[in-house]
Amino acid sequence: MGADRLLERFFAKDTIALAKIISLIENRAPGYQEILDALYPKTGRAYRVGITGPPGAGKSSLVDKLTPLYRTEGKRVAIIACDPTSPFTGGALLGDRIRMQDLISDDGVYIRSMATRGSLGGLAKSAHEVALALDAFGFDLILLETIGVGQVEVDIAQAADTVVLVLVPQSGDVVQAMKAGLMEIADVFCVNKADQGEADIAVKNLQTMLSLAMRDWVPPIVKTVALTNQGVEQLKEAIAQHRAFLGEEGFQARRRERLRAFLKQLIEEELRTSLWDGEGLKYLESQLERVWAKELSPHQAARELLRATARR
Amino acid sequence: MGADRLLERFFAKDTIALAKIISLIENRAPGYQEILDALYPKTGRAYRVGITGPPGAGKSSLVDKLTPLYRTEGKRVAIIACDPTSPFTGGALLGDRIRMQDLISDDGVYIRSMATRGSLGGLAKSAHEVALALDAFGFDLILLETIGVGQVEVDIAQAADTVVLVLVPQSGDVVQAMKAGLMEIADVFCVNKADQGEADIAVKNLQTMLSLAMRDWVPPIVKTVALTNQGVEQLKEAIAQHRAFLGEEGFQARRRERLRAFLKQLIEEELRTSLWDGEGLKYLESQLERVWAKELSPHQAARELLRATARR
Repeated sequence: MGADRLLERFFAKDTIALAKIISLIENRAPGYQEILDALYPKTGRAYRVGITGPPGAGKSSLVDKLTPLYRTEGKRVAIIACDPTSPFTGGALLGDRIRMQDLISDDGVYIRSMATRGSLGGLAKSAHEVALALDAFGFDLILLETIGVGQVEVDIAQAADTVVLVLVPQSGDVVQAMKAGLMEIADVFCVNKADQGEADIAVKNLQTMLSLAMRDWVPPIVKTVALTNQGVEQLKEAIAQHRAFLGEEGFQARRRERLRAFLKQLIEEELRTSLWDGEGLKYLESQLERVWAKELSPHQAARELLRATARR
Repeated sequence: MGADRLLERFFAKDTIALAKIISLIENRAPGYQEILDALYPKTGRAYRVGITGPPGAGKSSLVDKLTPLYRTEGKRVAIIACDPTSPFTGGALLGDRIRMQDLISDDGVYIRSMATRGSLGGLAKSAHEVALALDAFGFDLILLETIGVGQVEVDIAQAADTVVLVLVPQSGDVVQAMKAGLMEIADVFCVNKADQGEADIAVKNLQTMLSLAMRDWVPPIVKTVALTNQGVEQLKEAIAQHRAFLGEEGFQARRRERLRAFLKQLIEEELRTSLWDGEGLKYLESQLERVWAKELSPHQAARELLRATARR
């Protein structure tokens, strides 16, 4: 199917066309940029909520329970589950997505798992581009679910309007979340599995941490037990509170900041690609020889190569 | 102190000069590149062992127990403990490094903690540069200890000649390590805390995973209990086996590959810096306006900006 026909069906709300377009984006298939160009004017309406946290915190379960609450309001919900997977297996380890049977049968819900195949670096960019496609398709709410363990995951979460950090009541989690740089990007904290362990201590620890930060918005801390639906309504409420706090101005400011970051990333990526074309790689190899032979230091070689590139 | 005097003292094996140089590298202080240029010809002798794995796996304890074994052979050991820390706290959460009192009093051992301050991206580069300085200073063995949770940590670990992946006997760990892309970079597996949980099942799972991969080198799996020194000698032996497997040729090939990656990284970084100078940023803002107004798509704006940059 040609790109024009695909877009026509996409704009006619055909979910098969949507799925194909998402695959083109994920695979960086030829022509995917032009498709994104065509979708772009239709974007800007969807609200994005990032759900992040350590493995096993119960992010997927929370997403499963939150989704029906939005559905009863008539909102169309898209879920992007990002899973930075090992190239060792060649595929995703997303067995846990099987649970979403109830949601799958609802055509107001769209679920897409995204896994990296080989390179982690591109996942944040692809997730953002897929979110643009879902936005253009007409979803009201996009839930971006990611494991919060590294920079890539932080990048994905930061591409949201409201970021929910899900933790379990173990003191170690709070420390690890801090190490991963997640504390400062969270707009709402969720202590899940609050029926296990020492949930109140975890909440107290979080409150202490948060009291150290000077922020206009003090992130609410919600205790939940996803499996029994406990606190899920309150979580939804906390997300709504943050949205209200942002207001239209704050929402637009976040989106503009996100667009700036995305634009910079695109430009750097294009530049990198053009740098390592045939010519550039050949020159890299010859510089590598000289550095290997200790005629030059790595930094000297880098500076020389850049001067040569500028002259090209 | 001037750079010349600092280098003179460095080459006279003054550890205070070493510490100062490492700080210059970490802070990217003016002149640090020239110092690295001067050190570079003296590098290439040290063997690097990366020790990575999930938080709480016992990496630090293993490093503490391994180090004296190398010391009895008369080897000088440097330890770089990388800790991707939250900018929220503004400092490292490395309370656990306090345990190394025994090692600190030995002047054949040098311990350095490295934390990110704000940006994770630069940690891998800095860790590699610090390792170069330690190599030039005359350490025989460099132990690079990192939390294996994301791409940055994978990058750090990959800058080693032998990579040890430390896991605890919980099935979840194996899956998480796979997700983080750690399985394929490990040369030696270590199941630590083997007295707890189901260590034999973990070993069996690892064996099954490894049997799926086609590799010349089949990574040994060592069971350890760091706290009681159990298996630590065997871990050292497994590292030595991998080194013997690599041979001089394999060792040089790894180092050359590492140098290529470092050189590419340096070049890309310099290029990025020169791209976002005053002029580039100004143009970015004007393109952002147009994308925000939906006159252009992000990809179109990126391509236009690059064409304009090429003309500059």
